[in-house]
Amino acid sequence: MFTKDHVQRILEQAEKCRKGIENREIVGDELKGRVMGSMFYENSTRTKCSFDAAMKRFGGGVVDFIAEASSIKKGESFEDTISMMDGYSDVIVLRHPEVGAAERAAAIANKPVINAGDGTGQHPTQALLDLFTIRSELSTINGVTIALVGDLKNGRTVHSLAKILCLYKNITLHFVSPLNAGLEMPKSIIEYIKIHAPNFSMKTFTSFAEGIRGVDVIYMTRIQKERFTNSEEYEKVKGSFILTPKILNESREDDEDYDILGRNNNKLPIVMHPLPRVDEIAPEVDADERAAYFRQAQNGVYIRMALLKMVLGNL
Amino acid sequence: MFTKDHVQRILEQAEKCRKGIENREIVGDELKGRVMGSMFYENSTRTKCSFDAAMKRFGGGVVDFIAEASSIKKGESFEDTISMMDGYSDVIVLRHPEVGAAERAAAIANKPVINAGDGTGQHPTQALLDLFTIRSELSTINGVTIALVGDLKNGRTVHSLAKILCLYKNITLHFVSPLNAGLEMPKSIIEYIKIHAPNFSMKTFTSFAEGIRGVDVIYMTRIQKERFTNSEEYEKVKGSFILTPKILNESREDDEDYDILGRNNNKLPIVMHPLPRVDEIAPEVDADERAAYFRQAQNGVYIRMALLKMVLGNL
Amino acid sequence: MFTKDHVQRILEQAEKCRKGIENREIVGDELKGRVMGSMFYENSTRTKCSFDAAMKRFGGGVVDFIAEASSIKKGESFEDTISMMDGYSDVIVLRHPEVGAAERAAAIANKPVINAGDGTGQHPTQALLDLFTIRSELSTINGVTIALVGDLKNGRTVHSLAKILCLYKNITLHFVSPLNAGLEMPKSIIEYIKIHAPNFSMKTFTSFAEGIRGVDVIYMTRIQKERFTNSEEYEKVKGSFILTPKILNESREDDEDYDILGRNNNKLPIVMHPLPRVDEIAPEVDADERAAYFRQAQNGVYIRMALLKMVLGNL
Repeated sequence: MFTKDHVQRILEQAEKCRKGIENREIVGDELKGRVMGSMFYENSTRTKCSFDAAMKRFGGGVVDFIAEASSIKKGESFEDTISMMDGYSDVIVLRHPEVGAAERAAAIANKPVINAGDGTGQHPTQALLDLFTIRSELSTINGVTIALVGDLKNGRTVHSLAKILCLYKNITLHFVSPLNAGLEMPKSIIEYIKIHAPNFSMKTFTSFAEGIRGVDVIYMTRIQKERFTNSEEYEKVKGSFILTPKILNESREDDEDYDILGRNNNKLPIVMHPLPRVDEIAPEVDADERAAYFRQAQNGVYIRMALLKMVLGNL
Repeated sequence: MFTKDHVQRILEQAEKCRKGIENREIVGDELKGRVMGSMFYENSTRTKCSFDAAMKRFGGGVVDFIAEASSIKKGESFEDTISMMDGYSDVIVLRHPEVGAAERAAAIANKPVINAGDGTGQHPTQALLDLFTIRSELSTINGVTIALVGDLKNGRTVHSLAKILCLYKNITLHFVSPLNAGLEMPKSIIEYIKIHAPNFSMKTFTSFAEGIRGVDVIYMTRIQKERFTNSEEYEKVKGSFILTPKILNESREDDEDYDILGRNNNKLPIVMHPLPRVDEIAPEVDADERAAYFRQAQNGVYIRMALLKMVLGNL
Repeated sequence: MFTKDHVQRILEQAEKCRKGIENREIVGDELKGRVMGSMFYENSTRTKCSFDAAMKRFGGGVVDFIAEASSIKKGESFEDTISMMDGYSDVIVLRHPEVGAAERAAAIANKPVINAGDGTGQHPTQALLDLFTIRSELSTINGVTIALVGDLKNGRTVHSLAKILCLYKNITLHFVSPLNAGLEMPKSIIEYIKIHAPNFSMKTFTSFAEGIRGVDVIYMTRIQKERFTNSEEYEKVKGSFILTPKILNESREDDEDYDILGRNNNKLPIVMHPLPRVDEIAPEVDADERAAYFRQAQNGVYIRMALLKMVLGNL
């Protein structure tokens, strides 16, 4: 897990990367001649493409290890494959379906290994880009109220986000998942928050409308059909957790004029989603300026640029 | 559709790119740090590879969206995928099997979208490289005689070429396709030419030898077996539309010494083909200096360089 | 086949590349804007990735021809595909399952073609990196004793290595393969050595321990189960050809204090392997400083950098 200091430095570096791209101060010479070994043992389009874009914006090269085409079939061990790519690259980006894979790789490699998600384990770059998005959109992280919505049991991103938020202060978390669907936030995460962020407030909701009332951030996740044994139950639940412009508008609290940030609370909360979305956010919401999910995806490039720069910049 | 002015600027830019590569004036700094999002929803080796080469000759980076590996399976909409890549890239190159896909993408994206072919719709970069090839090989486009040969019904490239030629003057088109094979140039294209280029001359042929007699350009296309219900019919037709050195030599008109361009007509016409070829041009033709099809493929790089430069150069 | 002069120049260039990377003198501008066409008609992760890394360390671009996605299905000939890529690239790197493919390509292409392995034919870049590894690890190639171990019949790398070694002097080769397994070094290779390097000493062993006693290099290869008709036979053979720390330690000759290089012979021989390995070298050997196989893989980048630089550098 990251320290607060480390996280702050990454967020600041990511902010510099964003401005550097926007102002054309990043010219594509920064990491020229450097090689990122990209090892995706499972598909993850967004993570893969944003790491690629990050490296290439700095003028660096990417060498793709294609797992299906590889010597794995010939019986090569994970460790040997890592050692090979370690010899070819300046940094390894690893996505793997097994928990702990990134740690195993880091133990073997001489070059830095960036964990791009390992099974139900960590997905630290996603947590960082979520954090960066909240800070970018709301100018602060301390003191915000965040509704985590949907499948809170299986959604890795909401777990990682909840944990990294513990580095900040006075956050209110709304855990919003449908009644009797078994999709509640796991006790282990709640315990983690209680220990690491005792000043947090946590509330649980089964009503979508109530769960998002008055919040600063609505963090939507997908409710996967395959989690339900009863498809009738799924259809009922599904429909009630779709964010539409109407529901979004009604989330404003009419009885307060200003929110905790001193902003006029007539503003809607920002809407986040790790993507891909299916139908949990109506496309009509996209046009709203506070629909932040595509900016959130783009922020993934800045976070990954920040990490690559920090890891490779001073070599 | 392009205006004449726009097309001329692209052709001139492409000519500069060709010279820039040949003289080493293009050094690979021109688009460094810039990212092309490459989105091929269907395979097209030549189009994909030449766009990649174009971007890389300018020192730019390419981020590949791999459709089969993507979140499409999870139910993500085309529009959401475009929005994601739009956030990662400076320009999107899109190939898609559905007509209108490029327009749908352009309506969503903040960055420029280059249409690399959408179904039976447009394939504008192919039309441009065909045009560029004619101009490069013959020094002019106005006034030339072009035989379009083979499957004129289903061949998208001949439709696009015929339409873009309408921006020029006094062109003679020979539509050459086998008798009773139902592969004639569609009426809609012929009508388009009549309206947009009333000074064009159009002639229809069922004899290959007659159709290519005295022309400046023989544009060959493949006759696909699967278009025929009767395979005997196919075999008969197929054999009669194969370009051999003998047929090519006989295409010269002995009774005229100089063609419309004032060139000695003892020169053979140039031979074009969108590739891949199967057997419609005998390999023996390759050695002839007027076999232009591999230069035509290479011209695809210059046209795509021109487009990328025009779209990204002044950002 | 290479001349001695040519090989020496490549090895020296590769040494420069290694130092250039280590000292950051290679900055990623050397081949900027240049394009390597990467054509792998069969998978070869190590060769593919190390060529990619080599080109990208110089700041060059790679255009991938993906055989499965290509027009081959439409019936395009190998020659036509080469001509296409030739038009897009400054150099072609070709891996192909058929013997002679690289020569066929080179006959067609205007740009240089680097053979990255063609079937049971040549795999010259592997032979070069093996040679480079021996020179790097032992400071010399002349006069060394090398045990080639395992499947000497089907292992292409040991054939190529044995042949290229013939450019050097006074080498002793131990051919070590299991008894009655039909995996002996082919007579054609032995004849080749007798003709081209009459001053070589060659010995044949069926005992692993005896075959590696006192050598400078143990070059391990994999014994593939599918080569055996009798799986019991395989299991027996397999177990006896596994390099463990114990066997490695016992390979030292106690009765000699100094080896031919004047080094204290208490040093173990270096261990090489073309990789991927399965179980023919115990993972416990990895920690030994003379386990050279991962450095050997990394040397593949330097050799390929040397070749790309020599072929493209003075264009």
